[in-house]
Amino acid sequence: MLKESEMLKKLQNTLSKRRFLHSMGVRDEAVKLAEHYGADTEKAKIAAILHDCAKYISNEQQLKKCRELGLALDEETMSCPPVIHAPLGAYMAKTEYGVEDEEILNAIRYHTVGRANMSVLEKIIYLADMIEPMRDYEGVDIIRRAAYEDLNAAMLAAIRQGIEFNLKKQSVIHTDTIRCLNSIIKETEGK
Amino acid sequence: MLKESEMLKKLQNTLSKRRFLHSMGVRDEAVKLAEHYGADTEKAKIAAILHDCAKYISNEQQLKKCRELGLALDEETMSCPPVIHAPLGAYMAKTEYGVEDEEILNAIRYHTVGRANMSVLEKIIYLADMIEPMRDYEGVDIIRRAAYEDLNAAMLAAIRQGIEFNLKKQSVIHTDTIRCLNSIIKETEGK
Repeated sequence: MLKESEMLKKLQNTLSKRRFLHSMGVRDEAVKLAEHYGADTEKAKIAAILHDCAKYISNEQQLKKCRELGLALDEETMSCPPVIHAPLGAYMAKTEYGVEDEEILNAIRYHTVGRANMSVLEKIIYLADMIEPMRDYEGVDIIRRAAYEDLNAAMLAAIRQGIEFNLKKQSVIHTDTIRCLNSIIKETEGK
Repeated sequence: MLKESEMLKKLQNTLSKRRFLHSMGVRDEAVKLAEHYGADTEKAKIAAILHDCAKYISNEQQLKKCRELGLALDEETMSCPPVIHAPLGAYMAKTEYGVEDEEILNAIRYHTVGRANMSVLEKIIYLADMIEPMRDYEGVDIIRRAAYEDLNAAMLAAIRQGIEFNLKKQSVIHTDTIRCLNSIIKETEGK
């Protein structure tokens, strides 16, 4: 695995300035959340730094790259351009940044749509991405506050926000997001 | 297949008065929609009359009945009690009311969660169920109006209403509903 300083240098050379600053915001937020919930801060840091590493090229180029690499993404993901950078990013974190840890790779892989039975680390990266200080959208404060009170309540608020955003825009919704939602509803039932 | 008068008699003897009246409302609305869109009014009528025929017993009893019958429902449906009456209703329409027509049976089977690539008849039953005159919920008028203007726009409004209702109640959402939504978004894109 590259040293952290090498990762940052490589990212800074490939991502736009705005995207790089966003990644740094996610890193700081993810480390804080990991400390708060007793998760592995080192893994949270690496996953957060690299979560958008595939966003150095456009959605269309990401799709092309997946095809060239023979990355076996399901048809639904392949037809959702804004989602592809997550599994492609996990692939690149492994092949170009030398990350072998599956927990880190999964946190990158599922940070956009989520999935059923997410780990605490996966939830932390998902939320850190949605609440880092540069984020500014209607409802972000509710998710921001919830993130340090109750990880699952924050996930439900974040997923709900995402679904409502897509409904308004009339954009397709990934069924893994719904599996993620249903799984957390069941996890929290009776608590 | 039973005669229409025999169906109505059997339904009146099994469903609650309110449920029976709802079914009659769905019948009248479905026939009107079928006329409006040039679909088969006879099939629409039978599907609408029978769409809730499995609701003569509670959700728990429907689940038990499915297990006893060995009805091969997927795990997701089996864990969504309010959904089970639709596939169970299609089974009962066939075995107890003698309906053999697959288009009618599918319209009953998918009237609650929808599915990808719904037929016009399936959309008509889905919508008639949501807008028959007894229905009274926030936003029903928008769907009611859209239903006679643009079938897909009405479907999108109806699905959106259903998803938002579930999000508010923190209830699970069936992934087939999302497949239905995504399929209609793609159907309408570029039109």
